[in-house]
Amino acid sequence: MFPGATTDREAASYVVVGAPLDATTTFQPGTRFGPDRVRQFSESYDDYDRRTASRFTDLGVHDAGDVHPWDDVPAYLDHLAAELRSVVLDDAVPATIGGEHTVTYAGVEAVDPDVLVVLDAHLDLRDAYGGNEWNHACVTRRALDVVDHAYVVGARTGSAAEWDRAEADDVTVVPPEDAGEWARSMQEDGILDGDSIYLSIDVDAADPGYAPGTGTMEPFGLAPRELRDAVRAVAPYAEGVDVVEVNDRDDGQTAALAGKLLREFVFTHAAEA
Amino acid sequence: MFPGATTDREAASYVVVGAPLDATTTFQPGTRFGPDRVRQFSESYDDYDRRTASRFTDLGVHDAGDVHPWDDVPAYLDHLAAELRSVVLDDAVPATIGGEHTVTYAGVEAVDPDVLVVLDAHLDLRDAYGGNEWNHACVTRRALDVVDHAYVVGARTGSAAEWDRAEADDVTVVPPEDAGEWARSMQEDGILDGDSIYLSIDVDAADPGYAPGTGTMEPFGLAPRELRDAVRAVAPYAEGVDVVEVNDRDDGQTAALAGKLLREFVFTHAAEA
Amino acid sequence: MFPGATTDREAASYVVVGAPLDATTTFQPGTRFGPDRVRQFSESYDDYDRRTASRFTDLGVHDAGDVHPWDDVPAYLDHLAAELRSVVLDDAVPATIGGEHTVTYAGVEAVDPDVLVVLDAHLDLRDAYGGNEWNHACVTRRALDVVDHAYVVGARTGSAAEWDRAEADDVTVVPPEDAGEWARSMQEDGILDGDSIYLSIDVDAADPGYAPGTGTMEPFGLAPRELRDAVRAVAPYAEGVDVVEVNDRDDGQTAALAGKLLREFVFTHAAEA
Amino acid sequence: MFPGATTDREAASYVVVGAPLDATTTFQPGTRFGPDRVRQFSESYDDYDRRTASRFTDLGVHDAGDVHPWDDVPAYLDHLAAELRSVVLDDAVPATIGGEHTVTYAGVEAVDPDVLVVLDAHLDLRDAYGGNEWNHACVTRRALDVVDHAYVVGARTGSAAEWDRAEADDVTVVPPEDAGEWARSMQEDGILDGDSIYLSIDVDAADPGYAPGTGTMEPFGLAPRELRDAVRAVAPYAEGVDVVEVNDRDDGQTAALAGKLLREFVFTHAAEA
Amino acid sequence: MFPGATTDREAASYVVVGAPLDATTTFQPGTRFGPDRVRQFSESYDDYDRRTASRFTDLGVHDAGDVHPWDDVPAYLDHLAAELRSVVLDDAVPATIGGEHTVTYAGVEAVDPDVLVVLDAHLDLRDAYGGNEWNHACVTRRALDVVDHAYVVGARTGSAAEWDRAEADDVTVVPPEDAGEWARSMQEDGILDGDSIYLSIDVDAADPGYAPGTGTMEPFGLAPRELRDAVRAVAPYAEGVDVVEVNDRDDGQTAALAGKLLREFVFTHAAEA
Amino acid sequence: MFPGATTDREAASYVVVGAPLDATTTFQPGTRFGPDRVRQFSESYDDYDRRTASRFTDLGVHDAGDVHPWDDVPAYLDHLAAELRSVVLDDAVPATIGGEHTVTYAGVEAVDPDVLVVLDAHLDLRDAYGGNEWNHACVTRRALDVVDHAYVVGARTGSAAEWDRAEADDVTVVPPEDAGEWARSMQEDGILDGDSIYLSIDVDAADPGYAPGTGTMEPFGLAPRELRDAVRAVAPYAEGVDVVEVNDRDDGQTAALAGKLLREFVFTHAAEA
Ligand SMILES: [Mn+2]
Ligand SMILES: [Mn+2]
Ligand SMILES: [Mn+2]
Ligand SMILES: [Mn+2]
Ligand SMILES: [Mn+2]
Ligand SMILES: [Mn+2]
Ligand SMILES: [Mn+2]
Ligand SMILES: [Mn+2]
Ligand SMILES: [Mn+2]
Ligand SMILES: [Mn+2]
Ligand SMILES: [Mn+2]
Ligand SMILES: [Mn+2]
Repeated sequence: MFPGATTDREAASYVVVGAPLDATTTFQPGTRFGPDRVRQFSESYDDYDRRTASRFTDLGVHDAGDVHPWDDVPAYLDHLAAELRSVVLDDAVPATIGGEHTVTYAGVEAVDPDVLVVLDAHLDLRDAYGGNEWNHACVTRRALDVVDHAYVVGARTGSAAEWDRAEADDVTVVPPEDAGEWARSMQEDGILDGDSIYLSIDVDAADPGYAPGTGTMEPFGLAPRELRDAVRAVAPYAEGVDVVEVNDRDDGQTAALAGKLLREFVFTHAAEA
Repeated sequence: MFPGATTDREAASYVVVGAPLDATTTFQPGTRFGPDRVRQFSESYDDYDRRTASRFTDLGVHDAGDVHPWDDVPAYLDHLAAELRSVVLDDAVPATIGGEHTVTYAGVEAVDPDVLVVLDAHLDLRDAYGGNEWNHACVTRRALDVVDHAYVVGARTGSAAEWDRAEADDVTVVPPEDAGEWARSMQEDGILDGDSIYLSIDVDAADPGYAPGTGTMEPFGLAPRELRDAVRAVAPYAEGVDVVEVNDRDDGQTAALAGKLLREFVFTHAAEA
Repeated sequence: MFPGATTDREAASYVVVGAPLDATTTFQPGTRFGPDRVRQFSESYDDYDRRTASRFTDLGVHDAGDVHPWDDVPAYLDHLAAELRSVVLDDAVPATIGGEHTVTYAGVEAVDPDVLVVLDAHLDLRDAYGGNEWNHACVTRRALDVVDHAYVVGARTGSAAEWDRAEADDVTVVPPEDAGEWARSMQEDGILDGDSIYLSIDVDAADPGYAPGTGTMEPFGLAPRELRDAVRAVAPYAEGVDVVEVNDRDDGQTAALAGKLLREFVFTHAAEA
Repeated sequence: MFPGATTDREAASYVVVGAPLDATTTFQPGTRFGPDRVRQFSESYDDYDRRTASRFTDLGVHDAGDVHPWDDVPAYLDHLAAELRSVVLDDAVPATIGGEHTVTYAGVEAVDPDVLVVLDAHLDLRDAYGGNEWNHACVTRRALDVVDHAYVVGARTGSAAEWDRAEADDVTVVPPEDAGEWARSMQEDGILDGDSIYLSIDVDAADPGYAPGTGTMEPFGLAPRELRDAVRAVAPYAEGVDVVEVNDRDDGQTAALAGKLLREFVFTHAAEA
Repeated sequence: MFPGATTDREAASYVVVGAPLDATTTFQPGTRFGPDRVRQFSESYDDYDRRTASRFTDLGVHDAGDVHPWDDVPAYLDHLAAELRSVVLDDAVPATIGGEHTVTYAGVEAVDPDVLVVLDAHLDLRDAYGGNEWNHACVTRRALDVVDHAYVVGARTGSAAEWDRAEADDVTVVPPEDAGEWARSMQEDGILDGDSIYLSIDVDAADPGYAPGTGTMEPFGLAPRELRDAVRAVAPYAEGVDVVEVNDRDDGQTAALAGKLLREFVFTHAAEA
Repeated sequence: MFPGATTDREAASYVVVGAPLDATTTFQPGTRFGPDRVRQFSESYDDYDRRTASRFTDLGVHDAGDVHPWDDVPAYLDHLAAELRSVVLDDAVPATIGGEHTVTYAGVEAVDPDVLVVLDAHLDLRDAYGGNEWNHACVTRRALDVVDHAYVVGARTGSAAEWDRAEADDVTVVPPEDAGEWARSMQEDGILDGDSIYLSIDVDAADPGYAPGTGTMEPFGLAPRELRDAVRAVAPYAEGVDVVEVNDRDDGQTAALAGKLLREFVFTHAAEA
């Protein structure tokens, strides 16, 4: 159980769902251990949050356990989306812990938001990767079939074709150097106000120094406080969230960061949404 | 390059091929790093082998590098089988380093032997696993479409249906406790003589104490010398070999064992085949 | 959840309880992670057991989760004993996963057996260690306040005072070299027949080559099959069991062995008790 | 021996004492290895310090080895305090390497300062934790029985009750975002001048990206240079110091940072006190 | 092969050479694994670079494999220098992956530049270390026999004698705090214009939080983007490059950073030189 | 300090000396950490030994710390030999903890025995390796300049030239399969009686399953009890001992084994010599 997620399903405002998909990681595997690792390394966090003056256990979080993947990725995503949609239908916010980034598609399908905000080192705008349109490097592209606009915050790499696609009107790329300023302006200018948002946190948005436990490290990334500020800026408008791409190949610092950002989302959403 | 595999492809009697497939491991992933890890931990072995009074570098071994997988496993197996068949057509022995056990099917297709000898903790006789007939837990079953008989040496676990399948005439299960005696009788009684054999070494046949770096550890397995003796007994009759299921989640002892067994195969085959 | 422990509490014949006590380990800590690690590394085992022709999921195993320790060890042991006693009162067999060896005292109190069989490298017969009578090095001594006799199988080290205490009539020490023969004679001669037994498996009974993930490694220990045979010999007469002293400081081989031995206990007990 | 701590006890100006207490860590244990690990990873530092134009080996540092804990934490703290008091009586500065944060109480008792400066992610202001008033989460609260004022620099989490306690006049909380400015003002405005200070460095004040080898990681923390600047600002007024909460669960970066900060303390104190 | 280094030797503009020397590391060894580890952790980088709008595979990079060391370090350096000189004679840029820093001397000999720019935590200006003038702590001093000037960027430690040597006219030390500004001014003011430069990247220039996998961690170092900006500033003028001191004692983040900086060098040099 | 080595130098019967040489390991480095690691992992052993009914602390063991290497290996060996000779002159037994196997030469020089018994996977009979006659692969050859006869117990690999050299009258090779029987016959037949012996334990004599933390793993080796029995057989006649080739690249099981064997030597020698 995610620490503090002690609310019953029926009464829950937030439902944590583990989605340990680990099918298309091209370099270092291990995202199948992501949900349990994030739960484990969130154990030592205080229940109380000073900024919002609230207790995590008072915010109505339920942990529904994991939805276990099988070999057919599209079928799994359908099944996961159905699970998450049932959360949405209960007026709760689905909070998915990956697993590889691909699972975001299920979250987006379930929430059906206007706007997707992705924190990610990678554009993930490929049409297909190695012939597979459900590879984790394609997930933002797939999501654009559902959403009207995607912000990709912290993005610093992609193929030429992805950068071309990123030029289109429905995509805004925020380079890592501008992420802090972007969060500030989002928060202050109310740009996202009125939109329905889905927030996806690919932990490789962080610099590998802070998050080495991920499948495709990409240097020159965000600092933890920049990720936090982006989460705080987006959370008030979000109707779904996920944190993905955590594996077990480090000393726990990546899972600790991921779990902290998920809590930050909940505290902010509960206080401001 | 596998250490000592210095012969050119055209002149080679043995061709090492890496097959870093890591698609269907259900527990701990990492077989994608198997070929490189086996190569790395074979570095410190002496060129000279005392028992056969031969040098590895004199035996005509070539390392053809890796055949990189993609998402479509059956297509990959076809492609790999074609590569390995070209080795067979050149009258050389294909020696595959996995990768998950599934790659054995490509070796069996390429060699088309009468008999398959598998060293494995698992029966791998499932018809399908999670709906997937190309899961690594099905590979011996798949191979029985090609071979007339399979010995599964060191097997100590399987589903009820697998044990049923193992009752059929075309399968002989040798429990770990009998593996030593089996190797002795194979060697002395010439039982395999006259057959064309393919030898597949799933490193989890060894007890996890000796080989913790594998995806599905199964206690109560073989000691390294028992594996060695089985390799020595089978190698003289073998026309193809593989060693599979090594991952990078230990301190190198599993890869060191796998590389040693592969060398043992080559030394024995060159001396006695 | 321990894999396959899918039975409801009311209907259960075996109740798994995690007892992650990690208070008095003198060398390498980490037994607090033992229960979860044993559960995790038992994931890849087949449901079906060939020898007993039974399925684990058919045997009525429930996982009651963990009983979390706090600073007052005697109070914790009381609380844990109460939990385990409620299992006994329901005519189920308590199966504790440690945590340090100290937790065995709670199991012994709950079951109140005639005889304790401990697989352990250490005598654990100290009256106190560093002034603390609840140190894990005292647990067999404490248990002798409850049981009539203790077998310490695999024991190879202790203080002079412990070896003196071991001379008494109520203790039988079986050195590692004799453990195989002891298991055979127990099984064949029915020596334990008629007694009520509690079986405690301190994983450091195994040689460190097989179980490095434990707090106080002691070389020259048992092989995994010897541990297995001892479990098979004792299980038919046992009314409670535990496996203890697993930590997270290895590559999982220790937890895999511990989980396998616990399953071996259940399969044997269900078939023969 | 701490590298360079080559001075005899009688002639020493600084006495390093290891206090490997590891009793109340609630999440990841291992602080018992802290002192040796800090010594080991301080091996590669140059003797010479450019900023202060001094050699570490000229500054009179002695390493008195470790004071080994036993089960009775309050008794241990008494004993440790006596050891450290003997250092103070010899007009030397005690420099403790933990071990868990609890050991700071012994240092504070020995030095009896006016002011405590703690670098810490946590308030450590609980009255008790799990019924234990000597838990590491209570150490700053305990110290307030001795000191007149405590600065908690880098603090970003605590219970509601701790934040309430932090409102009192005798506590100043400096959030991580203000730590740099705080160090600058301390240094420039001479605020600490005239007071007797004890400096306690809980290494989890640093962001987990820089110090993953600690028991309770808390993201959004200090950068190493901010820690350094705080040490430089406080050291001239300090009569005792400790660095605590380092464990062995990383690649050494946490111990390297801790050892560097301890040296920074000594260089600054020797030059400016 | 370094990922994307697919050009033939004859056609190459950049030649990657592995130099796994691991002879004089005084603290943590393992640089012998540096070249393979940098290659491995560069696998997941995109071929395309957005800033320069170029593909790595279009830039003419060849990987010549490793030049294996033997016990005689000066002889090895001679041999390596000859290899690298042959690259220079072919009008290609040698790009060495260490190995310990000592290998830079071979690069400097081969390129014979006017100016050496070293990114390093250490001055490396010792005349000898432990009686050995070829120790890695002497390499910049040795290089000053060849070059007219050395910039040591990020330097924060050295012996008193080294700091004295650094006062001479032919050395400029840029402390870590000034490295960002230095890179900006180099880029904007064209200071290096007209000179022939050799760039050596000792990965310990980075803070250990970003690069723990190196032999002698030194806290308070550069952030990855600062290293990147220094590489971008120097690359247009450089005729040779190396990245050194990466070992295998972390989770890959150090090798990932090193490989990224090497690519950054190539992209910048190809675009601007 | 080696645990229990509490006797003063003058009163000592056994003097432990650390010799952390790590200069010529060709594959995995780290023997420089061997002495400290063996000391650390010997912490949890009981003072009392049941078989000999003696306490380690009663046997007069002193730990003289480490003799730190420098770049000139022959000079270091001279220096180390002088240290060890001073132990011999005091009628004490030198007990060296390596470091690489090369340090045995210093022990042999100091003790000047008739016979050398080496437990080793490797013959170590090369005249030179890579042009270096002080490589660890040459140490038994070098020792034959001093001793009249060498037994190499557990040897399973070497170059053709080494096997030739092993045919000479002054060398006896005992293959791993015969090591148990050899120990028995040594013990029972008093073959070594009357000779002065030096015992060198290269931990790679053990199978890598038991001792993965060594530079050049070689499968098919000895079990821990076989090593123990060889030590017991030889110790009564030995005047010097070492245990070498332990590194820090495992979970401590190799160091635990090495420390245990060293204690076994002392207990046996004290009881029977
Ligand atoms: Mn992504
Ligand atoms: Mn990404
Ligand atoms: Mn298999
Ligand atoms: Mn298998
Ligand atoms: Mn025990
Ligand atoms: Mn024990
Ligand atoms: Mn604290
Ligand atoms: Mn803290
Ligand atoms: Mn350097
Ligand atoms: Mn450096
Ligand atoms: Mn040797
Ligand atoms: Mn050896």
